[in-house]
Amino acid sequence: MIDNALTPLKTILGADNVLSTPEQTAPYLQERRGRFAGRRVAAVLTPGSTQEVAAAMRQCQTQQLNVIPQGGNTGLCGGAAALDDDPHSVILSLERLNKIRLLDAENFTITAEAGCRLSALQEAATAADRLFPLSYAAERDCQIGGNLATNAGGMNVLRYGNARELALGLEVVLADGQIWHGLTGLRKDNSGYALRDLFIGSEGTLGIITAATLKLFPALRCRATAIVGLASMADAVQLFSHLRQASGDTMTSAEVMSRQALGFAVDYAPNCHEPLPAAHHWYLLVELGSSAAAVDLSKRLERALADASDVGDYRVARSADEAADFWRLRNSIPGAQKGAGASIKNDISVPISALPAFIDAASAAIEQHCQGVRLCPFGHIGDGNLHFNLSQPKNMSAEQFLARWEELAGVVNDIVMRHHGSFAAEHGVGQLKPNEVSRLKDPVEQSLMRAIKLALDPEGRLNPGKVIPRYDD
Amino acid sequence: MIDNALTPLKTILGADNVLSTPEQTAPYLQERRGRFAGRRVAAVLTPGSTQEVAAAMRQCQTQQLNVIPQGGNTGLCGGAAALDDDPHSVILSLERLNKIRLLDAENFTITAEAGCRLSALQEAATAADRLFPLSYAAERDCQIGGNLATNAGGMNVLRYGNARELALGLEVVLADGQIWHGLTGLRKDNSGYALRDLFIGSEGTLGIITAATLKLFPALRCRATAIVGLASMADAVQLFSHLRQASGDTMTSAEVMSRQALGFAVDYAPNCHEPLPAAHHWYLLVELGSSAAAVDLSKRLERALADASDVGDYRVARSADEAADFWRLRNSIPGAQKGAGASIKNDISVPISALPAFIDAASAAIEQHCQGVRLCPFGHIGDGNLHFNLSQPKNMSAEQFLARWEELAGVVNDIVMRHHGSFAAEHGVGQLKPNEVSRLKDPVEQSLMRAIKLALDPEGRLNPGKVIPRYDD
Repeated sequence: MIDNALTPLKTILGADNVLSTPEQTAPYLQERRGRFAGRRVAAVLTPGSTQEVAAAMRQCQTQQLNVIPQGGNTGLCGGAAALDDDPHSVILSLERLNKIRLLDAENFTITAEAGCRLSALQEAATAADRLFPLSYAAERDCQIGGNLATNAGGMNVLRYGNARELALGLEVVLADGQIWHGLTGLRKDNSGYALRDLFIGSEGTLGIITAATLKLFPALRCRATAIVGLASMADAVQLFSHLRQASGDTMTSAEVMSRQALGFAVDYAPNCHEPLPAAHHWYLLVELGSSAAAVDLSKRLERALADASDVGDYRVARSADEAADFWRLRNSIPGAQKGAGASIKNDISVPISALPAFIDAASAAIEQHCQGVRLCPFGHIGDGNLHFNLSQPKNMSAEQFLARWEELAGVVNDIVMRHHGSFAAEHGVGQLKPNEVSRLKDPVEQSLMRAIKLALDPEGRLNPGKVIPRYDD
Repeated sequence: MIDNALTPLKTILGADNVLSTPEQTAPYLQERRGRFAGRRVAAVLTPGSTQEVAAAMRQCQTQQLNVIPQGGNTGLCGGAAALDDDPHSVILSLERLNKIRLLDAENFTITAEAGCRLSALQEAATAADRLFPLSYAAERDCQIGGNLATNAGGMNVLRYGNARELALGLEVVLADGQIWHGLTGLRKDNSGYALRDLFIGSEGTLGIITAATLKLFPALRCRATAIVGLASMADAVQLFSHLRQASGDTMTSAEVMSRQALGFAVDYAPNCHEPLPAAHHWYLLVELGSSAAAVDLSKRLERALADASDVGDYRVARSADEAADFWRLRNSIPGAQKGAGASIKNDISVPISALPAFIDAASAAIEQHCQGVRLCPFGHIGDGNLHFNLSQPKNMSAEQFLARWEELAGVVNDIVMRHHGSFAAEHGVGQLKPNEVSRLKDPVEQSLMRAIKLALDPEGRLNPGKVIPRYDD
């Protein structure tokens, strides 16, 4: 691509917002985890308004350039990364669309542009005595546009839903450069098809989300946190049901950790200590929250745990510091796993009731396929979502182990499908899993996805190679 | 249509399940409200399984018959009714697909066929110590397939969402007779496009929902109910915010009634009495619910109301009977309105914060356009959803008044749009409002809807004339 070809884009966006030298484009090419690093794109575009996104999109259609929308670039599946050497694509970063347009406290909504960081939304909500509940590890770096494009999940899905369930309206630039003005803040609107939900989770393959109106909730006035030691996943599932009922459905998080996952945190992460006197096969970390100030949630949680059967041991946090200690264990697992060597990550979900059978079957199959592998499952029990991660055997090099990613992920995913689960639960498909879409998804569903892709992006300019497998016809 | 043409369908479904005499088809042609009554269809089909629905759909494609999917036939906008004299259409009733396939209490899900009555799902959930929260007046007659096809709302949307938010997976027969097996019970699944949400709310124009997996919640162990008298809608909006926060977000319903609406109930409905000593301009009916047995919600509600400002008067129900008295007032309004003559119904929504300005503007405009009209607004304040109903002036006949439906609805809908609202909030579009879709919806959104309709139903066999306006190209 010769630089002249970028002249029309520079006219539209200003020369400063069309980055094309290797130094300028490098930070956008390199995905944070380092697994998917494109080597070259024609340019990185940084438009400053929805109108500029639309004009750039039209220009890219004219010049037959593909467009890779990019938010905070924190994704784990390469959805926002270039495909290796890709001179016919531009990365379109939404980072300059970073205004909160409106916070309507009485309507319990916030309208924000795609480039707003997730933490900025959380903070704006807090300042208005409201809660924006989407929360996960990358919240200071990721952007709400990317959160919606990937239908991000995280810690509070159990109570508040994932990004899709938090969205009421969207503004989207379409493949042909038209703008869909769908920014409603309505809880009930049955005046047409659910276009909103089609763009959410489509990872930029159907349109470019430029702004969204999202639900807010009453700010939480009190919390209670406990960690519980359990003998089995079956006990954890049963306890989750009991606590959900007995807590008055005030549970915001229910996280499960295997002994191996918690042990990695204790061994490799700073300030992580055994939370209970003895070791247990599984740990459940639960948190309750209420916007009512006068409620004693800790007492309610203590009572509910005392009433439960098959609980090995438990501790309700006596202070915010102690609650933070429990959470540090959970949040340190991904980092701590690095201390134990290379890891193969499986972001899967099954029905909550199928978790015990899935764990048994997947553990046995992986141990048979790769002797000495250390299983490190943890995740969101309330969503049936496990990070069924595998740490390298001590007698194998990182390279040897990582070379088996596709094989071992395939073993896990086959068992996921037998338990009516998903091989892409909360991190999406990106460029990591289109092969699994092709291999494992109902052919009728694949043809529906293809029909919709063709209807909305007939020339295939939006993020090609992501989500939708390449078909040969 | 000569009867021979039905022979292949009789072979597929059995002769008893292809109804073609006027006596047989009449109950399916006549919509309950009587506003949309088709005069003739080729036949009414009552398949007994998903496979039979699929085979019938394929046969209809072959014979170039259009298909009108029908659930409990309780819709208010003619979405399931035939278009007048329609010999080239069949009504496909899902009534015989009425099995609950699975209730998975540990996964908090129920899988049911489209023809299951809503009340049957509620009862099955209760028997398993769970709650299926979708609830509205027609719940003993409507079917879950229709609830999903219309994205039904109702009384508990504030806390639990509408039908779309309750659905996790669907099984759908497509226009070409293929079956999409999308019956997952997963809270997190980012392995492809949100096809589920496209079918939900599409009123049978994109596919025929044959079964669904839906969320369950912990059963409620206690409730608290209060009725509050207020001077204005602005006070009601403010009180709603306060109570949502102070109740610990345990509010399941927040219903607003104008004095006129409540007065009609008192005047025309049995066992309806003034709930408070004096009359007020507006009434708010709130209900809290909790699955925790030991919580004193009535005390919490009493305290929250005592702390609130700008409350005219209130009463917290002292017994289940008294709570039922309050609810009877609310639930009697639609019937009571008949006692006051003919009514023009506007099912609209605006942001909650815009309700006061909308009420002022719409009331003034309607009073100017139609002197003597009695405004009877009521609805779901927590969803910004009002039934902005108009009762006939005393000096006008029902016929004269109803002849002005389109004109007066247009006046209301124009004001709705100025307040960023929806002219079809929870009852859908059906055949009542495609003109408003065409008149009021963003042209870009209309072209997206058309593109999707073409992609999924290229021959336009599924429920033509509903939702999507007829375009002239």
